[in-house]
Amino acid sequence: MNDLKLSPIVAGAWRLSEWQLDVPQRLAWIEGCIARGLTSFDHADIYGGYEVEALFGEALAAAPGLRERMQLVSKCGIKLSTPNRPSHAIKSYDSSAAHVRASVEASLKALHTDRLDLLLIHRPDLLLNADELARCFEQLRSEGKVLNFGVSNFTASQFALLNSRFPLLTNQLECSPLHLDPLDDGSFDQLQQLRLRPMIWSPLAGGRLFTGTDERSLAVRAVLADMRERLGGASATTLALAWLLRLPCQPIPVIGSHRLEAADEAMAATKLELSAEDWYRIWMAGAGREVA
Amino acid sequence: MNDLKLSPIVAGAWRLSEWQLDVPQRLAWIEGCIARGLTSFDHADIYGGYEVEALFGEALAAAPGLRERMQLVSKCGIKLSTPNRPSHAIKSYDSSAAHVRASVEASLKALHTDRLDLLLIHRPDLLLNADELARCFEQLRSEGKVLNFGVSNFTASQFALLNSRFPLLTNQLECSPLHLDPLDDGSFDQLQQLRLRPMIWSPLAGGRLFTGTDERSLAVRAVLADMRERLGGASATTLALAWLLRLPCQPIPVIGSHRLEAADEAMAATKLELSAEDWYRIWMAGAGREVA
Amino acid sequence: MNDLKLSPIVAGAWRLSEWQLDVPQRLAWIEGCIARGLTSFDHADIYGGYEVEALFGEALAAAPGLRERMQLVSKCGIKLSTPNRPSHAIKSYDSSAAHVRASVEASLKALHTDRLDLLLIHRPDLLLNADELARCFEQLRSEGKVLNFGVSNFTASQFALLNSRFPLLTNQLECSPLHLDPLDDGSFDQLQQLRLRPMIWSPLAGGRLFTGTDERSLAVRAVLADMRERLGGASATTLALAWLLRLPCQPIPVIGSHRLEAADEAMAATKLELSAEDWYRIWMAGAGREVA
Repeated sequence: MNDLKLSPIVAGAWRLSEWQLDVPQRLAWIEGCIARGLTSFDHADIYGGYEVEALFGEALAAAPGLRERMQLVSKCGIKLSTPNRPSHAIKSYDSSAAHVRASVEASLKALHTDRLDLLLIHRPDLLLNADELARCFEQLRSEGKVLNFGVSNFTASQFALLNSRFPLLTNQLECSPLHLDPLDDGSFDQLQQLRLRPMIWSPLAGGRLFTGTDERSLAVRAVLADMRERLGGASATTLALAWLLRLPCQPIPVIGSHRLEAADEAMAATKLELSAEDWYRIWMAGAGREVA
Repeated sequence: MNDLKLSPIVAGAWRLSEWQLDVPQRLAWIEGCIARGLTSFDHADIYGGYEVEALFGEALAAAPGLRERMQLVSKCGIKLSTPNRPSHAIKSYDSSAAHVRASVEASLKALHTDRLDLLLIHRPDLLLNADELARCFEQLRSEGKVLNFGVSNFTASQFALLNSRFPLLTNQLECSPLHLDPLDDGSFDQLQQLRLRPMIWSPLAGGRLFTGTDERSLAVRAVLADMRERLGGASATTLALAWLLRLPCQPIPVIGSHRLEAADEAMAATKLELSAEDWYRIWMAGAGREVA
Repeated sequence: MNDLKLSPIVAGAWRLSEWQLDVPQRLAWIEGCIARGLTSFDHADIYGGYEVEALFGEALAAAPGLRERMQLVSKCGIKLSTPNRPSHAIKSYDSSAAHVRASVEASLKALHTDRLDLLLIHRPDLLLNADELARCFEQLRSEGKVLNFGVSNFTASQFALLNSRFPLLTNQLECSPLHLDPLDDGSFDQLQQLRLRPMIWSPLAGGRLFTGTDERSLAVRAVLADMRERLGGASATTLALAWLLRLPCQPIPVIGSHRLEAADEAMAATKLELSAEDWYRIWMAGAGREVA
C-alpha cells in the first residue's frame, strides 16, 4: 500500500464481542497481537451488532499510548436491521456521504480515537455515487479523520469506477484454498496491475478448512497434512496462509481468533515460502481439478 | 450526455404501427408527448417491419416546425428477414460502413428530416470493425446527417472497443426491477465511470411488471403496491421508473405507450426520489434475495 | 503485429513426433509449408512430451539457410510430469524468470537456432509476477534470444496485467465455429481495441468439425456443405478458416496437419471473403441460436 503500512497479518476483531473478555483480557489480546507483529486491527461498524468497536475502544481508552502502536481499519456501508439501529427497517446498503460521515464519526467515538488509518466501504452499494463518495473521502481526509480509503467485496468494474475518482488502497476480498473466486474473476489481476495489495477475509474459509466434511475440504486437508511433515511440521493455518502469501498480488490476510497461538501460526506463514508445485498441489485440491 | 440533451423520459415509437393511428392521431400523440416533456423520440429502422419511421415522418411532414421541438434517435445494424427486405435471406447483423450509411439515408428519408440527433448501433455485430465504423460516424457527422452516436445492447468490452475509436454517448440497455443484468455485469459501472448516461429499454419489463404471474413479478408487484399508499398514490409505472431514475448512472428510460396517461405517470417519476431503503426493497423483490 | 510478420496461416508442429518422419521427410514438410506461404511455425517446449522441438531442429540443422526463411514461435510455462522431466512431480505452471529463461535456452538448443521470433507464455500461471516476467522478457530481448513476446489462453484481465508491464504481441486462443468463447468473453474485443491480432489454435475444433456427431458439429457441417457449392467448391477446411479470417481482429490460425493439401486448403481461405450473411449462417449453426 502507498502511505499506510499494514502488518503482514491483520488481527480481525470481528468476533470480539463473542469472546466475552473483560477490559484487561481485551488489552492482553491486543498487546499479544502487537507483540507478535499483528499491529493492524480490522473492524467494521456492524461487527457484533454494532458493539465490537466500543469494546475495543474501551480497552484503548484504558491504555494510553496503545493507539500509536497500531493501525486501525474499519468499514461502513451496510445497514443492519437490529435493535441497536431501530431506524433501519431492512438490511440494506448506504454509501451516501451523509451515512459514511455519520458512521465514521460513530466509529471514532466508539474506538476512542481521533482517526482511522483505513476506511473501507463494506459492500458494493448499487446506488453508489462515485463523485459524491469521492468528495466525502476527500473531506474526511482533509479533516484528518480517515487517512486512507478502500473497499471490500467490490467487483473489478466497481473498483475501477470508484478508483477513477479517488485513489483506493485496497479491496478486501474473501479468498482461501476453498474460495478461489478472486483468482478467476479478474480481481487479483486488477490489483496486481494497479500495484495494490488485497486484504483477505476468511483466509481459513471460516474454519471449514479444519472441520469441513465436503469433498473439497477433505481434499485440501489431506494435501496440507501430507505437506506438514515435509515442511517442518507447519500447521494447517500456517500452510493455508503461506498459500495466500505466495500470490504475486501480495495479499494481507485477516485472521479472527482470540487465541494468540493462532497469531503465532499465522506469522510463521510469513517465513515459509511454498514452492510453486506445492502451491499448485493445494490449488488443485481446492479447485477439484488439475491445471489445463 | 455531452452535446445532446435528451428528455428525462424518452417516447418510444417501437409499436407505433400497431396503434393504427391516422396522421392527425399520430400528431396528437407526438404533440401530447412533447407537451408533457417527452421531447425525445426513440426509433429504429426495423421497428414495425421497417415501417414505423415512415409513419412518424408522415406526421412530421404534416406539421412544419415540429421537428425543431424534438430530438430524434434511431438505430441500425439489424437486418430483418421480412417481405420488406427481400435481399435479407436470414436475420443477421451488419455494422459495415455501407450498411450504416444506407440505413441512415433511408431513416432520414422516411422520417422527413435532414438529421438524426442520435444514431445507435442496435446490436453488437461480431464482425464490427471499429476503425471502419468510426470513420463512417465521422463522415456522417461532418455531413450533418447524424449529430451524435451510441450503441445498444453492447457488453462493457464491446463498448470500450468502439468508444476507444469514437466517443460514444450512450449504451441503450434493458433494465427493470425484473431485469437486473446491467447492475451486475459492469455495464452501469462503466457508464458511470465514463460519465455517460444509459438509455433504458423495457423499463417496465415489457408489461410483465403489471401482468406477470411468475414469482419475481408477483413479489415486485406486492412491494410496489405496499409502497403506493406511503408515497402519495404513485402508480406502479411511476414507482418502477423512479426506481431506475434513482440509479447514480442517471438512466434515461424509454417508454412505449400510446396512452398519454402513461407519459404523465412516467414524468411523475422524475419528481419522486425513492429512499435508499425503498430502492432496495424493490431490488430485493426483483433479485429474489437479500443484500449480502 | 508490430515488428513481427507472421504468415497468414501458421504451421503447427504440435503433432510432429506422431508423424514419424525421418529428417528428409521433415524437411519436405517444412519446405512444402514455406512454398505454400506458411512461413511461420508454431512450437512449444512440451509438444511431443518435450521432443518436437528437437525433431524440428534436427531438420533445421540439416538445411543451412532454412532458418532465415521462417519465423519460429515457441511457448513455455507448463511443466508436464513425464519421464522426460523427472523433476516435475505434478503437472503445474511456472512463469518464474528462472523457468522461462531455462526453457528458452532449451528451446534454442533443441531448435538449433540462436533466436525465437516469438515466445508465448502457454497458460495463465496464477502465480505470475508481472514485474518479474517483464524484466525477464526485457533481458531475453536485449540478448537477442527472443524478439517478441505474447501469451496463450489468457483472460482479458490477465492479458491487461502483463501487457501493462511489457507490450505483448498476441494472445493465442482457441476459436472455431464450435468454440466461440473469445467472441463472447471480451478477448477479441480487447485485442481489436489494442490493434493486436490473436493467433488461433484448434481452428478446426481438433477435427470435430469433420467427424463430430454432436448436434452442433452436424449443424455446422450441414451449413458448410450447403455453402460449398455456392462458393466454388471450397472445402470445409477452407470455409472454416475463411470464417475466422473474416473477423475484424484479424486472427492468425495455426493448422497442425502433415498433409500439404491441408496447407493448400488453408491458404485458399485467405482468398475467400465470406459475406456477412454467410458468416452468420456458420455462427448460428455453431452457437445453436439465431442472433437476438
